[in-house]
Amino acid sequence: MQSSSVASVQILKITSPDSDKNSFASNSAEDLLAVEEPLEIRIVYGDENNRQQKNISVTMCTPGHDEELAAGFLFTEGLIKKKEDILRCNSLSESGNNIVTVELQPGISFDPQKIERHFYTSSSCGVCGKSSISAVKNIFNKTEVKDDIKINASLLTTLPELLRKQQEVFEHTGGLHASALFDLDGSLLITREDVGRHNALDKLIGATLQAVNKPLKRLAEIPLHKHILLLSGRASFELIQKAAMAGIKIVCAVGAPSSLAVELAKETDMTLVGFLRDGRFNIYCGEQRINKTLM
Amino acid sequence: MQSSSVASVQILKITSPDSDKNSFASNSAEDLLAVEEPLEIRIVYGDENNRQQKNISVTMCTPGHDEELAAGFLFTEGLIKKKEDILRCNSLSESGNNIVTVELQPGISFDPQKIERHFYTSSSCGVCGKSSISAVKNIFNKTEVKDDIKINASLLTTLPELLRKQQEVFEHTGGLHASALFDLDGSLLITREDVGRHNALDKLIGATLQAVNKPLKRLAEIPLHKHILLLSGRASFELIQKAAMAGIKIVCAVGAPSSLAVELAKETDMTLVGFLRDGRFNIYCGEQRINKTLM
Repeated sequence: MQSSSVASVQILKITSPDSDKNSFASNSAEDLLAVEEPLEIRIVYGDENNRQQKNISVTMCTPGHDEELAAGFLFTEGLIKKKEDILRCNSLSESGNNIVTVELQPGISFDPQKIERHFYTSSSCGVCGKSSISAVKNIFNKTEVKDDIKINASLLTTLPELLRKQQEVFEHTGGLHASALFDLDGSLLITREDVGRHNALDKLIGATLQAVNKPLKRLAEIPLHKHILLLSGRASFELIQKAAMAGIKIVCAVGAPSSLAVELAKETDMTLVGFLRDGRFNIYCGEQRINKTLM
Repeated sequence: MQSSSVASVQILKITSPDSDKNSFASNSAEDLLAVEEPLEIRIVYGDENNRQQKNISVTMCTPGHDEELAAGFLFTEGLIKKKEDILRCNSLSESGNNIVTVELQPGISFDPQKIERHFYTSSSCGVCGKSSISAVKNIFNKTEVKDDIKINASLLTTLPELLRKQQEVFEHTGGLHASALFDLDGSLLITREDVGRHNALDKLIGATLQAVNKPLKRLAEIPLHKHILLLSGRASFELIQKAAMAGIKIVCAVGAPSSLAVELAKETDMTLVGFLRDGRFNIYCGEQRINKTLM
């Protein structure tokens, strides 16, 4: 195992109710997270006497095999035709940014205009296309919303089952991610599903923006700082970034968070819960919002 | 459930070994898939007397709540500040393409140059940024590789356990996707893991391209038509597209495929297996490559 693929954090593990103490049992523990970091791919091309460089993409990925990732990306996107098109790959880490530079063989046909025509000047996955981690972090809404929200641990453990009952398409296909918005009493307000987890969350946040949807507008309006977001799978950086944009303060995921998800949740003063299943969960940050007393 | 979110296909279900018939039991069945389709988001902006239109993104998503998705995407990406910035949304389906046009209120500040600076002119998720489904389909390598490959159903059922033993980071974090390449005898050649499933596959394909990696080069070289690809999760369109680019003819997923994954697998003459777990699997297409006789 490459050590750079895994990051260690201190978490609070919430396990079974302890009726002697009238509280959920909890213990501080070390948890290992999959590392998520931006990787920039650059390409050097042109004739021997006229070498040029271009930034091709930024992707959020797990460190390790960076040069393979760059070579594979160029090939599977049709930007190179064969391995012999590559003269060499260099990877370096520059003030926290990981960069792979792929040098094409002199004379290999590579038209940067073609890329620009081929790809849109945008991104729909919420992370690719952003030039650096700091640029991404600067995006989210810095409007501070102070809160003294408290929710009960026992309430959190009921949420996954409420979501599952609403996941109609998942029930039939096993193929969809879901995002769900609950109020602080644990009532399910909105569920959205999609093959892309970022789309499910965009749909949910978009629903609260759609003025036409009157009943919903009354129930949930941005900033969503009096709500709980539940994600059906893992929590990646892009999902935490989107939640932060909407002012959400409590995000729970049925699966594991990534290292960068935890980092951004801390920076945006969010409560991040992971592995919320079977009556247990891990608190990655913001434990002050969770009341462990049995109700 | 919105009917457009689910597509029905005929599959072959492979279940338990039937020793009377010296073959795996199989039956033709109807299966429901999560629909995956491209959605294009356009924005109309400018003063009342000078309205302009711009394509913002193309995302692969599940139909339904398209206008919410567009509104949510614009908001969570910081392109609009509040719901009042939107005058109206229109969605339409134009010769199979889904398009949402978001009209901003006249006078709302929106600088298309800013988007171009903000997002790279590229895509790292392998699907976003592509202008239409037909453009995406045209990408993959059309070099036909004829094959008469046959693999045993019993061999396929052994693959997930072989992958799981190699998923070191997943074991520790629960947070990674994996891609694995096997030869036709079921020997595991390469495994790659990443928080992004498209990255795990790009790393794996990139590994076969890296000339420096001599032992691997001997074992697996593109086109990978004499190999089996195993995906640890679901099979989306982008994964099938990347596999097709590398000439892979047999793709197996532990999870569900999307509608568009099945469509592309059929078009590229691929064998696509889903829900490969607990000794069972579904064949979505290319069953001629799978031998159901018990060995």
